[in-house]
Amino acid sequence: MSQNSASAVDDARRDAVRTFLEAHKDEFVAQLSEWIRIPSVWTDPERRDDVQRSAEWFAAAARATGFPTVEIWPASDGAPTVFAEWPSDNPNAPTVVVYGHHDVQPVDPVEQWSFAPFEPAVVEGPDGDRLLGRGASDDKGMVLYHLFGLRANLAASGRTSPPVHLKLLIEGEEESGSPAFPELLRAKRDRLGCDVIVVSDNGHYAAGVITTCVRMRGLTDCQIDLHGPDVDLHSGSFGGSVPNPLTVLTHLLAGLHDANNHITLEGFYDDVAPLTDVERDLIARLPFDDAQWLETAESRATFGEAGYTTLERIWARPTCEIHGVWGGYMGPGHKTIVPTDAHAKVSFRLVANQQPLDVQAALHAYIAANVPDGITAKVEFFGDGVRPYLVPIDDPTVQALVRALGRAYDDEVLFTGEGGSGPEADIAEILQAPLIFLGAGLPTDRVHAPDEHAVISVLLKGAETAAYLWDELAALPSV
Amino acid sequence: MSQNSASAVDDARRDAVRTFLEAHKDEFVAQLSEWIRIPSVWTDPERRDDVQRSAEWFAAAARATGFPTVEIWPASDGAPTVFAEWPSDNPNAPTVVVYGHHDVQPVDPVEQWSFAPFEPAVVEGPDGDRLLGRGASDDKGMVLYHLFGLRANLAASGRTSPPVHLKLLIEGEEESGSPAFPELLRAKRDRLGCDVIVVSDNGHYAAGVITTCVRMRGLTDCQIDLHGPDVDLHSGSFGGSVPNPLTVLTHLLAGLHDANNHITLEGFYDDVAPLTDVERDLIARLPFDDAQWLETAESRATFGEAGYTTLERIWARPTCEIHGVWGGYMGPGHKTIVPTDAHAKVSFRLVANQQPLDVQAALHAYIAANVPDGITAKVEFFGDGVRPYLVPIDDPTVQALVRALGRAYDDEVLFTGEGGSGPEADIAEILQAPLIFLGAGLPTDRVHAPDEHAVISVLLKGAETAAYLWDELAALPSV
Repeated sequence: MSQNSASAVDDARRDAVRTFLEAHKDEFVAQLSEWIRIPSVWTDPERRDDVQRSAEWFAAAARATGFPTVEIWPASDGAPTVFAEWPSDNPNAPTVVVYGHHDVQPVDPVEQWSFAPFEPAVVEGPDGDRLLGRGASDDKGMVLYHLFGLRANLAASGRTSPPVHLKLLIEGEEESGSPAFPELLRAKRDRLGCDVIVVSDNGHYAAGVITTCVRMRGLTDCQIDLHGPDVDLHSGSFGGSVPNPLTVLTHLLAGLHDANNHITLEGFYDDVAPLTDVERDLIARLPFDDAQWLETAESRATFGEAGYTTLERIWARPTCEIHGVWGGYMGPGHKTIVPTDAHAKVSFRLVANQQPLDVQAALHAYIAANVPDGITAKVEFFGDGVRPYLVPIDDPTVQALVRALGRAYDDEVLFTGEGGSGPEADIAEILQAPLIFLGAGLPTDRVHAPDEHAVISVLLKGAETAAYLWDELAALPSV
Repeated sequence: MSQNSASAVDDARRDAVRTFLEAHKDEFVAQLSEWIRIPSVWTDPERRDDVQRSAEWFAAAARATGFPTVEIWPASDGAPTVFAEWPSDNPNAPTVVVYGHHDVQPVDPVEQWSFAPFEPAVVEGPDGDRLLGRGASDDKGMVLYHLFGLRANLAASGRTSPPVHLKLLIEGEEESGSPAFPELLRAKRDRLGCDVIVVSDNGHYAAGVITTCVRMRGLTDCQIDLHGPDVDLHSGSFGGSVPNPLTVLTHLLAGLHDANNHITLEGFYDDVAPLTDVERDLIARLPFDDAQWLETAESRATFGEAGYTTLERIWARPTCEIHGVWGGYMGPGHKTIVPTDAHAKVSFRLVANQQPLDVQAALHAYIAANVPDGITAKVEFFGDGVRPYLVPIDDPTVQALVRALGRAYDDEVLFTGEGGSGPEADIAEILQAPLIFLGAGLPTDRVHAPDEHAVISVLLKGAETAAYLWDELAALPSV
């Protein structure tokens, strides 16, 4: 849509950026290889020194790039975050926090790798030269290209400081679920003030389909416990005359969806940002094949909310799933009882602007209103939930990113979402700034799996995009 | 209702029966005590010789009473049934099979007994003298009173043979679920031809509330297995876009009942004999207190099919219960998956004239029609089910029994049902005869529990009722 807007990057500047990156490609690969050799698996207690070494490696690289302030911040559990700051000499420039992580996934099952995970090598692949190794894509490759992107920006412009106030925030326990990271963010909030957060920890929709993510679903989940009679009852002597907690549970759970698979909780959709025609059109332009996707899901049919496509259902619509149900007699053969108890685990995936706590209240109200006399119900949520995240595609920061991507790839830019739920909304909430996604991975990178690798030209496109993005953001009237 | 019909037993005959039984009360107690001392627990492999001794004891008692034919029939598993036959000298008399059993329940937990289970003693109770011991009520007391009832009948009438062709059929594995008994019945069908079956293995509704059972519910039960994706899926990446077998299961199960707790299966009520106003009035005349009954059920509220009382719901209306449900993640904490499988165990209690196989077909059709694409469903029934049983209260045999009970107790006779399911319908089906219930137990007898006992005067009322019943049945125009 916005590829027609004027870019702040002219052709001459672009040529200079590309020339710099082409000239420093081998240096980039060499540095990334060095970093990959440090097995920074925070989840493995035996590797925690390596995680510290990894932080120190990147801190040194940031210093060498020219960042005047570089610090290592240990979280309360010890996981080291690297913080690097380089102010612009333009005091009115916007402030950007780049978020990434330097810890990597464990390598188990190591016997399924076709190469040594921490001994990087370059091999030719169908998509160009690949750098093999754990962390090549997720996330060392995407963190490191920011140093090269910035160097390209400075080399091409002749500036001695970035066009934006730039802060790098590279955490050390992302693959462990970032247990202590939000606390660290809150503690360091005064150092992390910014106008926009750039997350570099994901990728494009597919090779040749250039995208940025603009939405992630939130989550709130709970356990429901119903109690009926205090003893298992003979279903002949008592069946049909006292409430059976399992029957009540099936009614409660089935009642959460109507015949169109809409969720029935009072007010559930009140805060849902409706999909605009433009957004639906953009999603529809992504190549997608239900049959191929069912193969991935090892499922035999699509299913879901009436009136929406599969991608819309996963990315842009809230859903409710039952994860587990149990109660009564679950052994072999038969035992005809009215059981004492019934249990379920249920979650709601949320989309902007739903609030997890509102959904929790609606479920509590629904259960209270629909549990018959004789059954006691307990609904316990696992924490306060995860907020959904949405950056409107017409937000100026998103449009700046679209222009940067368009310049880097000479291609149309489309938009994706994430069905899952991450801490992004919390980061944005704590830092009080919008959050945009600049990733340069491919779905074929095998992140979290054996044989992780990155396509070197794609990582360098990430560096190139970053080089343009700082100029695009600096050119905004205000962020 | 029918207490006004003319009885075949005049007052003089009744006085003679009562005089005989009063005179032989001590003999009855002595014989029953002797029989109780034989611990005929068929479920205990170490007691199987005792079960054989018990059969021999009763065979000898029947012979001593005058039965010309007495045989012991081993079932294919060895459990001994006593068969005794005494034809009437009136060739046109109806033929009656009396059914009972001489095996008894195990005595565990034996430490909860306040006396030795197999050392009978007479003690005074609030309801008169009690005979203490396992089997005093269930079922040795109720079997033995038939010998004394017949002796009283013969003594009072001066006859030398019973007024009906009388056959006693006293099985030896009832408390084990009669696994081989139906097979024995079929094998001996030519010896068991009859016009009516009298079951003596139950009791009255309460002390002072004289009743006979006219209905038992049938049963058919199954396991339902649903399969969705072949792997557990991430509910963020896939939730809301493929069918979740647990969600489908809750819809299938919840859909079995409508808002009035009627069962929704196609044609389910087509064969249900509706409760007549007379039957409802008779049930309503039984003393019943929901609060007290909930205390027994350890439940907090009644619940069930709209428009029916608790007793009607249990005895006279079909029900559907869920006995167990399981699937997905059932451990502590949360795991947000779309699971591969979902399972449930479900039963239907049936009333006359529903056929278990019809209900099985209706459930199969319901599942097939309501399982969405992408889910495979398997429904497996545990066998062919148990047929419901109903004797209409205006059946001549029931009316004969009502007159006999009315003469014995000088009281109104009411009617009960059984919510549970027993082999009675199968016995009636195999022997091709109606089946009526002449029991003389009380709900306070503690059958199947520690401290089983019988009230001696109540057992003798059973004997007295039997003495009259043969005359009442013989007086019927035809049975």
